[in-house]
Amino acid sequence: METPAPSRQFRRLGILFVVSAPSGAGKSTLLNALRQTPDFVYSVSYTTRQPRPGEVNGEDYHFVSMEEFEQRLAGDEFLEHAQVHGNYYGTLRSAVIEQLHDGVDVLIDIDVQGAQQIRSDGNPAISDAVADIFIMPPSLEELRRRLNKRGTETSEQIETRLHNAATEMEAWHAYRYTIISGSVEEDLQKFRAIMRAERYLSHRMVLTP
Amino acid sequence: METPAPSRQFRRLGILFVVSAPSGAGKSTLLNALRQTPDFVYSVSYTTRQPRPGEVNGEDYHFVSMEEFEQRLAGDEFLEHAQVHGNYYGTLRSAVIEQLHDGVDVLIDIDVQGAQQIRSDGNPAISDAVADIFIMPPSLEELRRRLNKRGTETSEQIETRLHNAATEMEAWHAYRYTIISGSVEEDLQKFRAIMRAERYLSHRMVLTP
Repeated sequence: METPAPSRQFRRLGILFVVSAPSGAGKSTLLNALRQTPDFVYSVSYTTRQPRPGEVNGEDYHFVSMEEFEQRLAGDEFLEHAQVHGNYYGTLRSAVIEQLHDGVDVLIDIDVQGAQQIRSDGNPAISDAVADIFIMPPSLEELRRRLNKRGTETSEQIETRLHNAATEMEAWHAYRYTIISGSVEEDLQKFRAIMRAERYLSHRMVLTP
Repeated sequence: METPAPSRQFRRLGILFVVSAPSGAGKSTLLNALRQTPDFVYSVSYTTRQPRPGEVNGEDYHFVSMEEFEQRLAGDEFLEHAQVHGNYYGTLRSAVIEQLHDGVDVLIDIDVQGAQQIRSDGNPAISDAVADIFIMPPSLEELRRRLNKRGTETSEQIETRLHNAATEMEAWHAYRYTIISGSVEEDLQKFRAIMRAERYLSHRMVLTP
């Protein structure tokens, strides 16, 4: 009984990772830490909001005018877009798709509204995204403390954010994964475990001849 | 606009992890390495096969007689059982369920036949097991090399195993996760990433009042 002995090669498409969280839940800090790791390419979003102190155009966001954003929107250039607190945010389609086809994992930072657009995208490489990771603040008190500490918003803006956050937090069970936010290091380890595990899902692997 | 500020506590049931692989794919080595980690409790299976040199009763397996195994089987004491190469293997139900209810993760080592029994179990704590991790040998040549090196079987037994392995390997895509076996350390890191990620699945979390 001689057994044939094929040599097997697997390859996979890149995975689009999306992380959602109420503002102040530690998402920006986590994303900054993730950007130091070599695991993926970070896709820089377009936005019409004003830069915060220290934010760099082309690194944190592409800061653009309302006119430019609406022109690109009309040209269907965005994979997803959202209007949050009166400002536009969006992810350019072309760069993301190219990287996924090259087997590169891509991370995007979008608000809760955008994830649904990703999941219902017509391109399977996009709609198979891991768009269901929710960073849950340990509590609203802690969220309030973090927002106060950041000091970039008025107390009225903070109350609006807390109100929105309370609503968003109620929807945690609609997300595939929930990370209860702890230290940056803990959140980073948890997120990277999810990223790695998703790469070993059989349905993402393709046998090459 | 005052926002209510609930403090949230999450708990979860333990998860039953099952790893399947063709013999010689590195599963035993991986499981031995996993047993050194504090992540879970390892459930020792019952078997009627003879101990291999160095195997310890109560640690590697509970080695029992055909009579004892069949008596327990008749009493429905096994969560799953299988007959492989003429010998019985089985996992005792009572200990596993108790640990899962205490929030402890349990790892069991069963052959490919057993995973389906786990998935169709009437107890949700059991059927929600991660019973779909397949350790894929890099190739049948490498598998043959490992089995020859182990030297515990005749060349006819090795050919039987390779024949079975080739069939099992064809079914890799039926498993949720596929780990392409590399070094023990690589396999261990991959497996632990899957274990951690599964713990962050929202549906496994329960809000306590």
